[in-house]
Amino acid sequence: MPKEKSVVTPWKVSKDIDYEKTSKEFGISKIDQLPEVFNKEILFRRKIVFAHRDIGKIINAIKEKKKFVMMTGLMPTGKLHIGHLLVAQQMIFYQKLGARLYITVADLEAYNARSQSLEESKQIAIDEYITNYAALGLKPEHCDIYFQSNRSKNAEKSNAYYRLQNLLSRHVTFAEFKAVYGDITPGKMLSSLLQASDMIHPQLEEFESLCPVIIPVGLDQDPHIRLARDITQRVKDIPLGQISSTYHFFVPGLSGGKMSSSDPTSFIALTDSAEEVKRKINKYAFSGGKDTLEEHRKYGGNPDIDISFIYLKMLFEQDDKKLAKIEKDYRSGKLLSGELKAIAIEKINSFLKDHQQKRSKVQLSKFIS
Amino acid sequence: MPKEKSVVTPWKVSKDIDYEKTSKEFGISKIDQLPEVFNKEILFRRKIVFAHRDIGKIINAIKEKKKFVMMTGLMPTGKLHIGHLLVAQQMIFYQKLGARLYITVADLEAYNARSQSLEESKQIAIDEYITNYAALGLKPEHCDIYFQSNRSKNAEKSNAYYRLQNLLSRHVTFAEFKAVYGDITPGKMLSSLLQASDMIHPQLEEFESLCPVIIPVGLDQDPHIRLARDITQRVKDIPLGQISSTYHFFVPGLSGGKMSSSDPTSFIALTDSAEEVKRKINKYAFSGGKDTLEEHRKYGGNPDIDISFIYLKMLFEQDDKKLAKIEKDYRSGKLLSGELKAIAIEKINSFLKDHQQKRSKVQLSKFIS
Repeated sequence: MPKEKSVVTPWKVSKDIDYEKTSKEFGISKIDQLPEVFNKEILFRRKIVFAHRDIGKIINAIKEKKKFVMMTGLMPTGKLHIGHLLVAQQMIFYQKLGARLYITVADLEAYNARSQSLEESKQIAIDEYITNYAALGLKPEHCDIYFQSNRSKNAEKSNAYYRLQNLLSRHVTFAEFKAVYGDITPGKMLSSLLQASDMIHPQLEEFESLCPVIIPVGLDQDPHIRLARDITQRVKDIPLGQISSTYHFFVPGLSGGKMSSSDPTSFIALTDSAEEVKRKINKYAFSGGKDTLEEHRKYGGNPDIDISFIYLKMLFEQDDKKLAKIEKDYRSGKLLSGELKAIAIEKINSFLKDHQQKRSKVQLSKFIS
Repeated sequence: MPKEKSVVTPWKVSKDIDYEKTSKEFGISKIDQLPEVFNKEILFRRKIVFAHRDIGKIINAIKEKKKFVMMTGLMPTGKLHIGHLLVAQQMIFYQKLGARLYITVADLEAYNARSQSLEESKQIAIDEYITNYAALGLKPEHCDIYFQSNRSKNAEKSNAYYRLQNLLSRHVTFAEFKAVYGDITPGKMLSSLLQASDMIHPQLEEFESLCPVIIPVGLDQDPHIRLARDITQRVKDIPLGQISSTYHFFVPGLSGGKMSSSDPTSFIALTDSAEEVKRKINKYAFSGGKDTLEEHRKYGGNPDIDISFIYLKMLFEQDDKKLAKIEKDYRSGKLLSGELKAIAIEKINSFLKDHQQKRSKVQLSKFIS
């Protein structure tokens, strides 16, 4: 068997993505300097959000206090896990900066690509996703949260959204779908065009009218972004600006690779108990430590591949100085793997305890149609 | 060059359709006996509506005075011509029988397949189509007339209609699209799925709920019917009955073949003046008469291929006895081609004069969104 090629499509993500190479191929720019306000958020400060297209428009809108939109979607399957925190943090970050948030529940995509009923999608979206987002600090009352199957209670808005999906289809070819997605079915094609409408429609006059739209994604979602941008460029009869996007690294699964909702040994769910977290980190979390205590003390550990350290860096240790000390001590061999895991367990459980308390108090019903 | 094959798809209709063969291939049944009420309409009495699928459901609904829907669409391009009268007559016929009428303006299909703007489609649909339908006797206030791009002022209805388009896409394959349509583009595919939603959605609970739906079409539209029926059979999570359809012959163009909006020498428009009608029939209408007066008197003419006679039979001579006499006299050679044309001109102009007067009085604005 030939070695599996590194394929980046929304339907399939191989474990060993070459981020540098892929982002170069796709014409994405590395993020260099950002305004100071971004550095409050560790995802930007630590370059976990590492690349972009057209982020300048967003920076300008923030500087000039002009209207802009952050658009994102959620696939309502499985439990919310710490991998989902990356987008949630960005949602909260942009909302605080004044962005109008558009959040689509991809229930039609779940129906077409995963044969999941709309009812099940609705329940998971509300119980797992939106409730957790609210507990994390999102203000749902200032978001436009909607289901793909049921865009709005306002008919003008619903018509405009689905109309756009249909109009866009004229401006794309099968060859493009195949180049972007590989295999394509009618269901996937409709989902893809509806997702393009998700990304583009905030700019329609029935919604926010022309304004910058930022869409934070993992690199595997870039084919959707590219397709939406390519189509946008071709549509001449509707006033549309080009969408902006940022790209973040994935939160790796416990044993490396991608954190996957379908593999419980790969993730820590936001509903996990302290005991479960302890067990999972101790049992599954890949360690960058050496095999023996002696070697570790002598040569030190490697935090760059240590899952516990990566979780602290990406999500749970907000204090740069503390993080730097952990990194230094681990690299030097002063800090042992078990000790690093204990720090991670403590930080994660402290976060989850607080989060689970907040979650139990969330009252959501009035924000969801 | 090989001889063009007889192809029956909505995108292309060859001139020499073999109706018998095609309807047999597609599993359509010939219409035999219909309840007496149908025979008031010459289209049924004279077997111009010649075949069907599942018409029994409609007959039952009429007999039992139960709710049923007649669904039809219009492509808003060109002028309304006498070829369009076939469907218009059936609309009026079924409305009188108590059907709820659904009429879709295929403006998204016009956008995707013909690059026509939605604005232009709207204007043509109202000025050319709906106004003429109303003048012909349709009561727009009892119809659900809508644009594909703007389904309803009621958000629940709009969401349900476009949701269905998206849900249906899971239940169809590319191979089926290709088998039915030949070449297919994303734009055509979306249009085709939206048309399936047009045909199926009256049965949704947001509209009429489960009830029979009759869709009168030319044989060239049957691929749409088959596709909608095939999909309907596969959808298990929405209560849907099977749609019914009838098939009518085309009104032939003046020189034979199909009457086409894009060829003014092929049609008589509902806005044509008496002079234009006279000129067109005399100049272009294919005649079944013999080449010389002597031969005609001796051998007689052939009404079966005579366009003037066909127009009288399909549309303009309601009186069976008068029609039979014309046919007999023409076949015997007693009636000359010029005389037959004069009869047709007189009947058509009498119809158009009356129609154009009615049309000038139609006030429509309140029925169209």
